[in-house]
Amino acid sequence: MTDLHSAIHHVRAHQDYILQELIDLAAIPSISTLPQHKPDMGRAAEYVANVLKTMGMNKVAMMPTAGHPVVYGEWLNAPGKPTVLVYGHYDVQPVDPLNEWHSDPFTPTVRGDNIYARGISDMKGQDIAVLAALAASINHGGGLNCNVKVLIEGEEEIGSPNLNQFLADHKEMLKCDFSLNCDSGMLRPDLPAIVYGLRGLAYFEIWVHGPEHDLHSGQFGGSIHNPAQALCELVAGMHDAEGRITLPGYYDKVRPLSPEERADLARIPYDEAYALREAANPPMFYGEKGYTNIERLGARPTLEVNGLYSGFIGEGSKTVLPAKAMAKISMRLVPDQDPEEVETQLRAYLTQKAPPTIRWDLKALGKGGPGVLTPRESVGAQAAAQALETVFGVAPVFKRDGGSVPVVSQIKNILGVDSVIMGFGLPDDNLHAPNEKQHLPNFYRGIESYLHFFANL
Amino acid sequence: MTDLHSAIHHVRAHQDYILQELIDLAAIPSISTLPQHKPDMGRAAEYVANVLKTMGMNKVAMMPTAGHPVVYGEWLNAPGKPTVLVYGHYDVQPVDPLNEWHSDPFTPTVRGDNIYARGISDMKGQDIAVLAALAASINHGGGLNCNVKVLIEGEEEIGSPNLNQFLADHKEMLKCDFSLNCDSGMLRPDLPAIVYGLRGLAYFEIWVHGPEHDLHSGQFGGSIHNPAQALCELVAGMHDAEGRITLPGYYDKVRPLSPEERADLARIPYDEAYALREAANPPMFYGEKGYTNIERLGARPTLEVNGLYSGFIGEGSKTVLPAKAMAKISMRLVPDQDPEEVETQLRAYLTQKAPPTIRWDLKALGKGGPGVLTPRESVGAQAAAQALETVFGVAPVFKRDGGSVPVVSQIKNILGVDSVIMGFGLPDDNLHAPNEKQHLPNFYRGIESYLHFFANL
Repeated sequence: MTDLHSAIHHVRAHQDYILQELIDLAAIPSISTLPQHKPDMGRAAEYVANVLKTMGMNKVAMMPTAGHPVVYGEWLNAPGKPTVLVYGHYDVQPVDPLNEWHSDPFTPTVRGDNIYARGISDMKGQDIAVLAALAASINHGGGLNCNVKVLIEGEEEIGSPNLNQFLADHKEMLKCDFSLNCDSGMLRPDLPAIVYGLRGLAYFEIWVHGPEHDLHSGQFGGSIHNPAQALCELVAGMHDAEGRITLPGYYDKVRPLSPEERADLARIPYDEAYALREAANPPMFYGEKGYTNIERLGARPTLEVNGLYSGFIGEGSKTVLPAKAMAKISMRLVPDQDPEEVETQLRAYLTQKAPPTIRWDLKALGKGGPGVLTPRESVGAQAAAQALETVFGVAPVFKRDGGSVPVVSQIKNILGVDSVIMGFGLPDDNLHAPNEKQHLPNFYRGIESYLHFFANL
Repeated sequence: MTDLHSAIHHVRAHQDYILQELIDLAAIPSISTLPQHKPDMGRAAEYVANVLKTMGMNKVAMMPTAGHPVVYGEWLNAPGKPTVLVYGHYDVQPVDPLNEWHSDPFTPTVRGDNIYARGISDMKGQDIAVLAALAASINHGGGLNCNVKVLIEGEEEIGSPNLNQFLADHKEMLKCDFSLNCDSGMLRPDLPAIVYGLRGLAYFEIWVHGPEHDLHSGQFGGSIHNPAQALCELVAGMHDAEGRITLPGYYDKVRPLSPEERADLARIPYDEAYALREAANPPMFYGEKGYTNIERLGARPTLEVNGLYSGFIGEGSKTVLPAKAMAKISMRLVPDQDPEEVETQLRAYLTQKAPPTIRWDLKALGKGGPGVLTPRESVGAQAAAQALETVFGVAPVFKRDGGSVPVVSQIKNILGVDSVIMGFGLPDDNLHAPNEKQHLPNFYRGIESYLHFFANL
């Protein structure tokens, strides 16, 4: 039995040490999508492996994949107790636009209650919080109440292209009762949350081609379908006037929200002015007609433009008629949409709508998997709910999340177990954006929540 | 009287020397829009000034402007004869995308009948051709039959922002009977042309803003009007299904084509397959319904996207909901459209069509002036027509050009004279695009055409 009192005392007395671990890990620019950061990926993996080694795990290993390595550790000294597979990732998103950061993205900087760095909330802060809880329980709390396997991957931000294979190759080693996924957040600093629904992801690049090279816009303008214009026409047509996505069949398999679930979701506190601030103050909200923002964000699928490029984008003017134009487009999927089917739908849309004046090309970039819903009544979910209520003094809300955690569905499909999804990010943490931050009081409450969670099992 | 025979003999005997001048000038990366090339701008201006000095001009000067200097020279030893203001520019367009060039843009390279370099056709080739004709006439032909003032500016490719002021400040010095504008081309290597109509230019940058910074597309996707999507919607709406531009009032002042002019334009030889190859093989032509391609290119106004940018455009995937999106948009204007009115029309379109879910911002980037039509019956136009027929053995066609030469309308407005527009570029010279080239046989025929032109006055 974990001596929870000693473990809590230890983490409270060693906050500076734990914060330093977070700073050291966040200082490593482990951007998985950029080849020039491959050495940094190795350094970040080594750092995580060392944290596991110092906590007296039975086994710690850096395990190769076709891409970046998985860091794995296990502590299996609680016979007869459940086995939890703790999931995290040590990779981060790129940092551009770099000039919008107020401090260097890889020089973690504390300002007020927050610490700023790329990946600090998504999800190095969550990684260090759960590892600190494990370390305190094992080294200073007399051991864990459960068996733990830890899997920290390095490819989440690029869609976990090699994780399926890894799970399949090590199915026996990874055998567990359920998974704890820490790649998540809360609604407000005072309101903990357990996520029971996640959206899936499908990501594409569309190229529209016209002439074989850029042309002079005076010499040829008016006689050729400008690829940038044609791309805008195609992208503009992907939503109708009511904010619905027009890809043929896109909503066919979307699971409708039951009146009961809509009522439950309506109980989540929602303050429009606060929500606008969290969303970095757009003039107003926008979305699919007939749904609340909470429903749009968790229970309805999306199609977003992630990037646009054509022609001359430097300072000043260049009178070019571009040869080509590109849009990065991604969809957040809900049960029971299928990423493969969505690709077929996008292809069908382009086939139907693209005019004969241009050529187009569609490239799928790392499908992230379908959306998932996990049970709220499981042992793990109940242990989590109790832990959160103990630490925060208020019962957590159960919510559906807008983001994608493809590993949750991969673990369900390959290992056959559900995930408990609990993390300590906040909506205004600027994930994937400049000035990403982690709220430090929440980081420390997160450590204690994980301590209680493991003790509750 | 010019001894035309001696002058022609001289240029034929010194083709290598003249080509070397072209190579030396084209090797200087005089990109006027990029601040880092300011020293190169000075070197290019010095080079042109030295060419003028070696031909025994009465006066040669580098004249400052608020931007890049004007190179000026004059030879005024033909009392009682007309005075011609020769116009050229020594600046060039940027070179991106650099990786699509087959040889370095500033290492002029001869392959077959062509020489490749940025600015070689637009318009250093035309500059050197007319200067070689002047030099041969003055130094080896016993002098010119007319008075000549030469004005070579350095800001044409950025919309000549300081030329108006320069013309106004030096109105007396620049007094002339007409201007010879060499910034032009032909339809085919065997068919010379005199341009009597030019389109104007208005260039804008539109920014659409949503949230104050980039957001996570999972966390916020579906609840905010994606600025890249909103921009695509706005750009897509700028043309209707018949290729007409939808800005309110855009066609109100467009001078309709008379049946006579349409008949004249229809006499210009046009081969669709050849035209498609010249346009770098788009799948097919596209344009305003009810007009031929020749009419669309010269006599009808356009609206083109010159650049598009939003969000993440690097390799791979980044699941960002961008804070903002940008389009560079330019219009080619015909008489009697006014660049200021067009800006008002674009602003009115955005005001009417932009949804309340986003903010937008419109920036005018160097208005290039209105379109112009010049008389075909003038002394200068007739001297040019005769010169071209002598050298090419075929009468030139009179055509309207799709490009913008704002200086033609500035010279009309400030100095009160028309321009004869005659140059020796070709439609497939890749102006403003990778692998810009000048056809060398035409370059040499151009020198002789200018020789005859000056002798005909």
